[in-house]
Amino acid sequence: MSLASEPLAGAGAWIKAMVDGWAGYSEDEEHLTRVFLSPQHKACAQAVMSAMRAAGMTARLDAIGNVVGRYEAARDGAKTLITGSHIDTVRDAGAYDGNLGVALPIACIAELDARGQRLPYAIEVIAFGDEEGVRFPTTLSGSRSIAGTFDPAVLSVTDAEGVRLRDALTAFGCDPDAIAGEARRCETVAAFVEVHIEQGPVLEAEGLPVGTVTAINGASRFAITVEGMAGHAGTVPMHLRRDALAGAAEMIAAIEARAAAEDGLVATVGRLAVAPGAINVIPGKAEFSLDIRAPEDLQRQAAVSALEATLAAIARRRGLAIRVERLYEEGAAGCHPGLMDQLDAAIARQGLRPLRLASGAGHDAMALAALCPIAMLFVRCGGGISHNPLESITAEDAEVAARVFLDFLEHFDPDLA
Amino acid sequence: MSLASEPLAGAGAWIKAMVDGWAGYSEDEEHLTRVFLSPQHKACAQAVMSAMRAAGMTARLDAIGNVVGRYEAARDGAKTLITGSHIDTVRDAGAYDGNLGVALPIACIAELDARGQRLPYAIEVIAFGDEEGVRFPTTLSGSRSIAGTFDPAVLSVTDAEGVRLRDALTAFGCDPDAIAGEARRCETVAAFVEVHIEQGPVLEAEGLPVGTVTAINGASRFAITVEGMAGHAGTVPMHLRRDALAGAAEMIAAIEARAAAEDGLVATVGRLAVAPGAINVIPGKAEFSLDIRAPEDLQRQAAVSALEATLAAIARRRGLAIRVERLYEEGAAGCHPGLMDQLDAAIARQGLRPLRLASGAGHDAMALAALCPIAMLFVRCGGGISHNPLESITAEDAEVAARVFLDFLEHFDPDLA
Repeated sequence: MSLASEPLAGAGAWIKAMVDGWAGYSEDEEHLTRVFLSPQHKACAQAVMSAMRAAGMTARLDAIGNVVGRYEAARDGAKTLITGSHIDTVRDAGAYDGNLGVALPIACIAELDARGQRLPYAIEVIAFGDEEGVRFPTTLSGSRSIAGTFDPAVLSVTDAEGVRLRDALTAFGCDPDAIAGEARRCETVAAFVEVHIEQGPVLEAEGLPVGTVTAINGASRFAITVEGMAGHAGTVPMHLRRDALAGAAEMIAAIEARAAAEDGLVATVGRLAVAPGAINVIPGKAEFSLDIRAPEDLQRQAAVSALEATLAAIARRRGLAIRVERLYEEGAAGCHPGLMDQLDAAIARQGLRPLRLASGAGHDAMALAALCPIAMLFVRCGGGISHNPLESITAEDAEVAARVFLDFLEHFDPDLA
Repeated sequence: MSLASEPLAGAGAWIKAMVDGWAGYSEDEEHLTRVFLSPQHKACAQAVMSAMRAAGMTARLDAIGNVVGRYEAARDGAKTLITGSHIDTVRDAGAYDGNLGVALPIACIAELDARGQRLPYAIEVIAFGDEEGVRFPTTLSGSRSIAGTFDPAVLSVTDAEGVRLRDALTAFGCDPDAIAGEARRCETVAAFVEVHIEQGPVLEAEGLPVGTVTAINGASRFAITVEGMAGHAGTVPMHLRRDALAGAAEMIAAIEARAAAEDGLVATVGRLAVAPGAINVIPGKAEFSLDIRAPEDLQRQAAVSALEATLAAIARRRGLAIRVERLYEEGAAGCHPGLMDQLDAAIARQGLRPLRLASGAGHDAMALAALCPIAMLFVRCGGGISHNPLESITAEDAEVAARVFLDFLEHFDPDLA
């Protein structure tokens, strides 16, 4: 990174090169896959620690496999602002999901360190190791440990090869019995602020490089089964049919219309299967999934209730049986209004239009919400594409985001959070 | 069959017992499966010939595997009325599809024969062997041979085990080179009148045992592919989505609405597949089938054109790509007005309300339409269920249908047809 006249000039290319370099720590050469506590995770963690140290931070691997970098405050006893994101990936991942939120703060701190500048609070950059939940049937164990909500029972879960989380941690060089000691005391933490690619198309559509997150959406998921009567596609007149797919189609239209009518609400039918599934047979059964998310729990719950009634009415009118099974329920995590204002102010100072948007995907910030006020800065990604090798950001956007984040840090008031 | 005071008293039970007996000629004991030119087909054909001879007819196996029973006219040189249906079945079939239309006319002729009664025309009862098209990639070869439209190139097609149709015919005891000679001359044939279970729910809903068919519906079939953009179910707001399944759902609703708005028209989406098909991914692709049938070709073609425009408009408005591939096209075969009137009259003379209805399924009568005027008498079946072991008729309905058919025969005027 050049330390030319303009702060962070060249930081975008530096951040992108760093993340692209970490993408080499992968299970195979063709695709990026880096799962929790794997050798590739270990190698990446070491690279992250090197980068942190080069930026003037101390760095250590904690008891749950997080990399914790620390840049001390101007004075002892000051509060800590925690930032960071995750360095584990999905299978066949993109490079920037999570990793950007580790590299970008390191670049900002490198700038502060180069200036010899300390802030009235300490900064920790944490590279969490278990956000994607790919290897073990658990997720957010790194961020939960920091928040003090890690459940030790999780240490007994095993991966596909039968390896227990406890043993994988030990092999990684961690001490599972020290996890409880990683929990921060809330009075020492000012906030958690995560930088992350948007993983959606809103910033691109708005022509903006960054945006302030309002909440990490809560989500409800359902499996819905509609049953009618299979029949001959030629011999059963329309008015005597009980067509499960025609009913499901009307339900999908109702789901879409409801979500489209409300800001923030999204609803998705991602799976649909039809039985018997022959070209000349009226469908007797249709099974589909429903995923509903909203930044407010009440909004999501109201939409779920309304849709349950709507779907039941459609089924009743068509003589269809319907069964709605709830598969998953996760509450929304709201971002802190004072932190959102401070992020908006930093964005505006950088000459950009502040934009607020909800996060549809889950993040480590959800877990940190149990400890302290949270906020997130989203960075535009190409085409809204994520969890895909085509995931992309530009060096220009990374640089703008780094300037915004550094500006935020320089103006951060722990007492407003 | 009892020949008590009332004509055909007990004939319903006799017909049902005969068809139930033929159901024993099956590939396996659990399910009824009897495919063209199989040993089970041969055994059934022999049973049919025995029944025909017992009813006073001559009977022979023709060059394409049809059983042809003949009951001579009162005088030489009279025209022939052909009736009959098929004795091949789908896999895991019901007993009555096709077979009823062979057994029922035999019962009627047995009655005529018992009375020593000849009619002013000859009657042929043909048990066709290839209506379901299960074994070979061809169908209606028996009825097409009679109509003179059999294509000899079909003799080269093979079944799943590589057996050529020509060789299967020879093994069955037929002479493939004599098929052309089975074609009837149109001036010798008065009509083809087929008795068949409805395979649909209309007669049951109307509370009627029989009905007069107006036409065998023409059918068009399509494979439709809708492509949008896959995306994260949480991060893409509704207004930025190009959801292929939501688009397909709107199309399915439009298809259903169009068919429901027009008498006679039926449209079915029987297959639908979604990709990538994950609960948390917006569908990028949806593929579905469309089967449209109507008693009039113009009606069907108008509906197809209108739907193609409607679907294209839905796709355009949603930013989706759409591809419509025509898989199959078969014109409607209209029943002869004079024959329909004669069937209606016979139904009315038996004290029943005549009802006209279209046939949504294909039948051998479609092929015979190339030779002579056609008509069909539909018999109520339980729940409209067919191509299913649960397919059922009652002995009472079979008896009523036999009375109607015998009444029709006794009053049949070849010159009105």
